[in-house]
Amino acid sequence: MKNTFGSSVSITLFGESHGEAIGAVLDGMAAGIPVDEGFIEQQMKLRQSIGALSTARREADKVRIVSGVFNGKTTGTPITFIIENQDTRSKDYGELAYKARPGHADFSAQMKYHGFQDFRGGGHFSGRITAGIVAAGAVAISALRAKGIKIATHILSCGGVYDRSFNNIDADIEQLNSIEFAVLDSAKADAMQAAITAAKEDGDSVGGRLETIVTGLPAGVGEPWFDTLESIFAHALFAIPAVKGVEFGAGFAAADMLGSECNDNFNSENGKISSSTNNNGGILGGITTGLPVLFRTAIKPTPSIYKEQQTININTMENTSLQIKGRHDPAIVHRARVVADSITALVLCDQLAMRFGTDYLM
Amino acid sequence: MKNTFGSSVSITLFGESHGEAIGAVLDGMAAGIPVDEGFIEQQMKLRQSIGALSTARREADKVRIVSGVFNGKTTGTPITFIIENQDTRSKDYGELAYKARPGHADFSAQMKYHGFQDFRGGGHFSGRITAGIVAAGAVAISALRAKGIKIATHILSCGGVYDRSFNNIDADIEQLNSIEFAVLDSAKADAMQAAITAAKEDGDSVGGRLETIVTGLPAGVGEPWFDTLESIFAHALFAIPAVKGVEFGAGFAAADMLGSECNDNFNSENGKISSSTNNNGGILGGITTGLPVLFRTAIKPTPSIYKEQQTININTMENTSLQIKGRHDPAIVHRARVVADSITALVLCDQLAMRFGTDYLM
Amino acid sequence: MKNTFGSSVSITLFGESHGEAIGAVLDGMAAGIPVDEGFIEQQMKLRQSIGALSTARREADKVRIVSGVFNGKTTGTPITFIIENQDTRSKDYGELAYKARPGHADFSAQMKYHGFQDFRGGGHFSGRITAGIVAAGAVAISALRAKGIKIATHILSCGGVYDRSFNNIDADIEQLNSIEFAVLDSAKADAMQAAITAAKEDGDSVGGRLETIVTGLPAGVGEPWFDTLESIFAHALFAIPAVKGVEFGAGFAAADMLGSECNDNFNSENGKISSSTNNNGGILGGITTGLPVLFRTAIKPTPSIYKEQQTININTMENTSLQIKGRHDPAIVHRARVVADSITALVLCDQLAMRFGTDYLM
Amino acid sequence: MKNTFGSSVSITLFGESHGEAIGAVLDGMAAGIPVDEGFIEQQMKLRQSIGALSTARREADKVRIVSGVFNGKTTGTPITFIIENQDTRSKDYGELAYKARPGHADFSAQMKYHGFQDFRGGGHFSGRITAGIVAAGAVAISALRAKGIKIATHILSCGGVYDRSFNNIDADIEQLNSIEFAVLDSAKADAMQAAITAAKEDGDSVGGRLETIVTGLPAGVGEPWFDTLESIFAHALFAIPAVKGVEFGAGFAAADMLGSECNDNFNSENGKISSSTNNNGGILGGITTGLPVLFRTAIKPTPSIYKEQQTININTMENTSLQIKGRHDPAIVHRARVVADSITALVLCDQLAMRFGTDYLM
Repeated sequence: MKNTFGSSVSITLFGESHGEAIGAVLDGMAAGIPVDEGFIEQQMKLRQSIGALSTARREADKVRIVSGVFNGKTTGTPITFIIENQDTRSKDYGELAYKARPGHADFSAQMKYHGFQDFRGGGHFSGRITAGIVAAGAVAISALRAKGIKIATHILSCGGVYDRSFNNIDADIEQLNSIEFAVLDSAKADAMQAAITAAKEDGDSVGGRLETIVTGLPAGVGEPWFDTLESIFAHALFAIPAVKGVEFGAGFAAADMLGSECNDNFNSENGKISSSTNNNGGILGGITTGLPVLFRTAIKPTPSIYKEQQTININTMENTSLQIKGRHDPAIVHRARVVADSITALVLCDQLAMRFGTDYLM
Repeated sequence: MKNTFGSSVSITLFGESHGEAIGAVLDGMAAGIPVDEGFIEQQMKLRQSIGALSTARREADKVRIVSGVFNGKTTGTPITFIIENQDTRSKDYGELAYKARPGHADFSAQMKYHGFQDFRGGGHFSGRITAGIVAAGAVAISALRAKGIKIATHILSCGGVYDRSFNNIDADIEQLNSIEFAVLDSAKADAMQAAITAAKEDGDSVGGRLETIVTGLPAGVGEPWFDTLESIFAHALFAIPAVKGVEFGAGFAAADMLGSECNDNFNSENGKISSSTNNNGGILGGITTGLPVLFRTAIKPTPSIYKEQQTININTMENTSLQIKGRHDPAIVHRARVVADSITALVLCDQLAMRFGTDYLM
Repeated sequence: MKNTFGSSVSITLFGESHGEAIGAVLDGMAAGIPVDEGFIEQQMKLRQSIGALSTARREADKVRIVSGVFNGKTTGTPITFIIENQDTRSKDYGELAYKARPGHADFSAQMKYHGFQDFRGGGHFSGRITAGIVAAGAVAISALRAKGIKIATHILSCGGVYDRSFNNIDADIEQLNSIEFAVLDSAKADAMQAAITAAKEDGDSVGGRLETIVTGLPAGVGEPWFDTLESIFAHALFAIPAVKGVEFGAGFAAADMLGSECNDNFNSENGKISSSTNNNGGILGGITTGLPVLFRTAIKPTPSIYKEQQTININTMENTSLQIKGRHDPAIVHRARVVADSITALVLCDQLAMRFGTDYLM
Repeated sequence: MKNTFGSSVSITLFGESHGEAIGAVLDGMAAGIPVDEGFIEQQMKLRQSIGALSTARREADKVRIVSGVFNGKTTGTPITFIIENQDTRSKDYGELAYKARPGHADFSAQMKYHGFQDFRGGGHFSGRITAGIVAAGAVAISALRAKGIKIATHILSCGGVYDRSFNNIDADIEQLNSIEFAVLDSAKADAMQAAITAAKEDGDSVGGRLETIVTGLPAGVGEPWFDTLESIFAHALFAIPAVKGVEFGAGFAAADMLGSECNDNFNSENGKISSSTNNNGGILGGITTGLPVLFRTAIKPTPSIYKEQQTININTMENTSLQIKGRHDPAIVHRARVVADSITALVLCDQLAMRFGTDYLM
């Protein structure tokens, strides 16, 4: 399947940036989970543009749930989220019907869809499609919280400015889930935003890193081969546009460690496992240990920049140059944070339902 | 499914390190592909231990194909590879029946399988299970080569020693596929091996990075959401034991770039696309552009070290200490290289069959 | 996955009978297929109630396509069909919140969803949900016709009245696709409708059989084990509510034949295969032979009848009796015919895309 | 996937009739299930030829388990069953390399595999491949019995002779699971065997019907759309070679009933549901009700008959005639019975693991 992810709990995405509507179908969630439309709205806002840091496109992003919720609770059958597109200025995109924007999917889409793709605003490849992930993810996040499973993501780096990592995990999670620009060291927020603004003023863009933590997961979730929990998370995370790397625990840094540095010791206290390190990111042999799951995601700088770029005409295959106009984000890492949380929650609902049964999250 | 990967072309792994046999079922390969048992044997040797750098366990790793090949060619039906285990010294593992080795899956397996798992030599979690991937991968690599698609992986780093990256891609691939210790800058082989030996003498281990390149892929392969080519590759690569990170193109470094640095320009020459950079690793919007696919994989240091480590008894959950004995690798990154090539080939056979039909590789 | 079917081409269904909207997401259709909204509308009408034979519920069943179609053609990305519910008289269903209707899913849904299911009008179990199948199926049917693949279904029996079987296949298909009440022997239409009316007047209902034929399929489509073409068709057909049996070719009658009667001989004329019989329904070893694919589907009588029935209260598990009121169909077999055609088309688009590549239907 | 079935519990089949070995990989069974090799052997014998009624081919069908079982119990990781082929007389099949046997997969396989298929003895299409289903099924049957879930299949008809249906269900199941030729009315065994013998003496063959019952299943298992329990069972059952029809409860006969006849009333006694009929076969809305699951499977007569038949040369596409020699079954319905039981058990293990979690059968 092409736009569907998950086995027991699955999400199907649909829509194009400048089409009529976008959305998602979330299937397999246990029945009886309260659906808090206020929380969905709040999560949607986190994904939206924040002031000067983001695109000038303004969408209400009002989520309409047309199935799967009855008397305020999930029914156990597919939940459909529909978000009408409103502020679509398709005239901005005329030239982009045939000039491939570097770093975008225009050329690869042409090779796949032979010119029939909806090119307007990136069409089905637009980051806007993540709105469906966030709407569905909000239901998943609520369900997990009710079981004591918490997720938080911070902007580990943006435009070369680095946040501190997690140290007091519970307090850090609490903090992140109550702020809009998700940094642990609040002093870094200004520096990051300055980097974004500087890029914007130069007609350029910046990237960044997200770091996600999950606490409260039971041990014993995941599979040894192919469906390791790392495999499943990475599969889902690489679906977020602009993600170019995923690492767990020490990640790439583990490659430079000695075994004696990298191995996480086991310590048992009152039947609960702890460790003085978490270089394996809470996953061993593809299966949770009960330590916090920890991973980082690399987000490339937004490819839509205002500088002139060398490219090709996808119809004639001739060389040409392109200067993008219109409304674009100088950075998306701060908006992608809620997408990472949402994807994480959807993966976990699926994994827990497969491991412990479809009623587990009821 | 738990030990199966792929849709149109799929692989199913089975076996335990000290069980009777290990192996794989490769299904969906087009009919009529020549199966070269000599090439399979050669690939199996690359995965095996090389002299002093590796475990003292010696397995013939003779691959027996019991189905799916007729008159030297694939039939189109499941190809079954069976490798009998021979040199199993299970007595070495006595204490490991109840002490969780840090960095290994012993504890998480206990949480999942409740004590019924085969703990001997890591059981089903052993790196030995990758032998089935290599056997199946050899058939896949041959099939791809016949279509002009080439794969090569080098040891980008090992024990802190770094190889150069690809520059003359065709020659580099040729070189890598003719040597045992896969480095591009042959001067680095000695330094890496010295790092491995040093770790070994200290009862410790080292990790490393692999870098894989694929040339000759058609553009237009992959899907926009969830089944992006990055998602599929990462899914499969994270199934290799000890992998803690996967990145494409510039990967994590892209997070610190400006958009104007990261965007790969497009250049067209005689209807063929090129670019002065490959920061997106040949994939945009989850779909191939026709540029070489490029990714890196982080391999953590082998967790089996000879130093005393703090751990727990998985039956009683009491704290204890552990000093591992037996035969272990001070590094696996040089052996994992052929596993990365094999996984890559299997992913591509599946993707190409889905995109262009089941007879495409015939 | 729970409400999704298909691999390369897939459909996801959503909605409840008395919820806000129902619909489907059709993913994986090749790009560039013309989407004829007039044909969709025409197919939707076939599924709707016809005069006195059907439920008094009147729905416009206006299909809104909100994604995946651009300039009148498929884009290759998910096509979303939304049908708003309008004529919902939920007050009719009050008592049905707790009394299980015999033959309906009320009790089994309660066991699965623990009382959180939307019980109104059968909720997600309603035959109304097949509207999404018909909308998506219309696109599939058009795409297949453009490749010379034709599908037709007739009412083989209804209320004990039997139609003749196919004899002049091309003319029969033509005829069926131009009439509303799909019988081959038009003399049988009156008798069947009389049987439906008689049942209705008695507060009862009737069932029937559908027979479906497909011509123009290439040989070599399907798989030997598990994904035999019969397996895939049966899987999809048993998803139609009220289907209790599926048989191919001679079907159950084959069980009483001798081998010498049942075997279809092969005859070759100008490189084209024919046979004097089609007892295997065009499928051998799970794979098409190129003969017409032929199958029959048993539809039980509509379970909503007006006679008093013995049942239970699903909350208290106490015995009670029930007399259903409201608007119900005395038969659905004539409406299910277009659903069978649609399911058949969706299965074939998926199978052909898997076999010959995702661009095959372009 | 092509030779794999199931989600949480899956089976992968491999092998050809005259290849080196056949077998299966059973993945996802809970850990800790006792594996009784004696019971496996006993089930394998039921599948084998019985005296004069069956093929003269004699295979020991010794099952070797090479993975997934440790200390006599399942480990939770893939269980691999290997059965070496021994009594292969490939010379019998010379002419069949190019003449399509009517009713067999020779022609459709040629269209799919282009001449590379292993044609010897039917190759991968041989009924012999069901041996892997029976071996794996034996483990599944044992696991279900330990949870109080019982399965039995009888020969409802063979060569036109009909057995009675189930009446005293518990006793009937007990009886069937202790006899070799599975009929409920033992008087019918002789008549059926006489029909088989008569066909054999005439160089012909007979078919039959199997009827399967399952008791002890919890209510609430299955899905409303696409993965209805009927869909899943039918999918798996149609993978058994020679199956041409599957029906549940009243099946095709339901099509001729009135709603008032077909609806199963609900009766509650001590919180347990019963009904005076079982026309829906224990499944409503695709989900179990807790009543026994009941279905019938149509088995066509063995296509290998000794009479001269009209066919084609699959290489030249010229018309020719064929007189099959060698060793063949005049009937397979009595042997297919244990295959039906096994498939049923595998489907149920998968469904229960998905519904109630992977440890449910522990």
